[in-house]
Amino acid sequence: MIITSLENNKIKSISKLNKKKYRDIEAKFIVEGEHLVLEAYKKGCLEEVLMLENYQLKLNIPSTLVSKEVMSKLSELDTPSNIIGICKKEDKNEIIGNKILILDEIQDPGNLGTIIRSAVAFNIETIILTENTVDLYNSKVIRATQGMLFHINIISMNGLIAIKKLKEKNIPIYGTDVNNGSNVCNLTKEEKEKFALVMGNEGNGVRPIIKDLCDKNLYISMNKNVESLNVAIATSILLYELGR
Amino acid sequence: MIITSLENNKIKSISKLNKKKYRDIEAKFIVEGEHLVLEAYKKGCLEEVLMLENYQLKLNIPSTLVSKEVMSKLSELDTPSNIIGICKKEDKNEIIGNKILILDEIQDPGNLGTIIRSAVAFNIETIILTENTVDLYNSKVIRATQGMLFHINIISMNGLIAIKKLKEKNIPIYGTDVNNGSNVCNLTKEEKEKFALVMGNEGNGVRPIIKDLCDKNLYISMNKNVESLNVAIATSILLYELGR
Repeated sequence: MIITSLENNKIKSISKLNKKKYRDIEAKFIVEGEHLVLEAYKKGCLEEVLMLENYQLKLNIPSTLVSKEVMSKLSELDTPSNIIGICKKEDKNEIIGNKILILDEIQDPGNLGTIIRSAVAFNIETIILTENTVDLYNSKVIRATQGMLFHINIISMNGLIAIKKLKEKNIPIYGTDVNNGSNVCNLTKEEKEKFALVMGNEGNGVRPIIKDLCDKNLYISMNKNVESLNVAIATSILLYELGR
Repeated sequence: MIITSLENNKIKSISKLNKKKYRDIEAKFIVEGEHLVLEAYKKGCLEEVLMLENYQLKLNIPSTLVSKEVMSKLSELDTPSNIIGICKKEDKNEIIGNKILILDEIQDPGNLGTIIRSAVAFNIETIILTENTVDLYNSKVIRATQGMLFHINIISMNGLIAIKKLKEKNIPIYGTDVNNGSNVCNLTKEEKEKFALVMGNEGNGVRPIIKDLCDKNLYISMNKNVESLNVAIATSILLYELGR
């Protein structure tokens, strides 16, 4: 059987997952395209898939065939994929490891997704998303992670509480400061073994209330004509250096 | 006098500059917001500005007041700026300096803009955009550069011709290769003084015809779970290392 009606109850309810409100209520989210579906499947959080009639992918989970029109309704892409997956959110809230990244009010979905991809590349163990950070399960974020969100511990936590917990674990907090910071390439091996790097909002940077709690501030050496780098770029370069 | 009509000829002709075809014909482009307008003004390529009635900015060039409705028509932003500027394109075609970045078929405007910002930060002297690279004067590219497009020599050139010219200048061409490359952090000081780094399309990488001409391939050391980084991130980290 193929679902062809846009008014089908199952389709209407899945379509709602394109809104954060419903993702929060249902504790589910959508991934689009075979690569992301397979990453979610490997991770064990894929609950079911919907695919076009002529599409071939055998997975050990419930599968539903849908028409192109239905896929277009569910998809957030201009050119919809052949397959989408419904995943259950994992309920994570524990800070794991000694290499932590705190993202404070990052707003752009592409930036968040790209940063997650880089964080996995440079062996970060936990990413903490503070209040007012863009939703991790936004489709643009998921696409920009290239599936890497399934390879790292990502939790949501109030920024001040997170820093308190990290200080209790004796993990030093690193902020950024172009004027009064240390050049990141001069950090010692010891300083790179255990840290929580805080990166802030695209326009405003890290909130002062959080910045005041940093134990050390870092900067990236660059041409004086440039005030700042894109936040995803700056974060990735800092993580690259911290991982050297 | 304030222009309030969307049918005004001047407005209709400026509005066309939101399309590449007309930017090419007129050799002009639009910048939006005070920061970009001022950067263009300092660079001497700002020809005129259009601003809202209550907006204050005195520049030594022609200025026209427009209504909010007219500004909305000209703007590419959801929340239009108070001011836009019309700039003339500079006719550049010379490869300057010993630190060159070649962008081969980069498609995403945000990636191109962000890469330009990073290239200025890490002292690249010329950026070469090959055929089929997204238009430099696309509004999303310009915004993502944060005005840095006015601080660097950017030229458009056929990729093969560019590489031929660079080889004539004895500038070594660096590509990227995760499997058969050299770790970028092991480059010698000499290898960082003179180079042309080629970075490719988001999905397909550098075209084989270009890749075959590279003198050396580089890679960034990272976690094995990650196949690749976002192209703007990878470019920025490579340029950061090449600039150390």
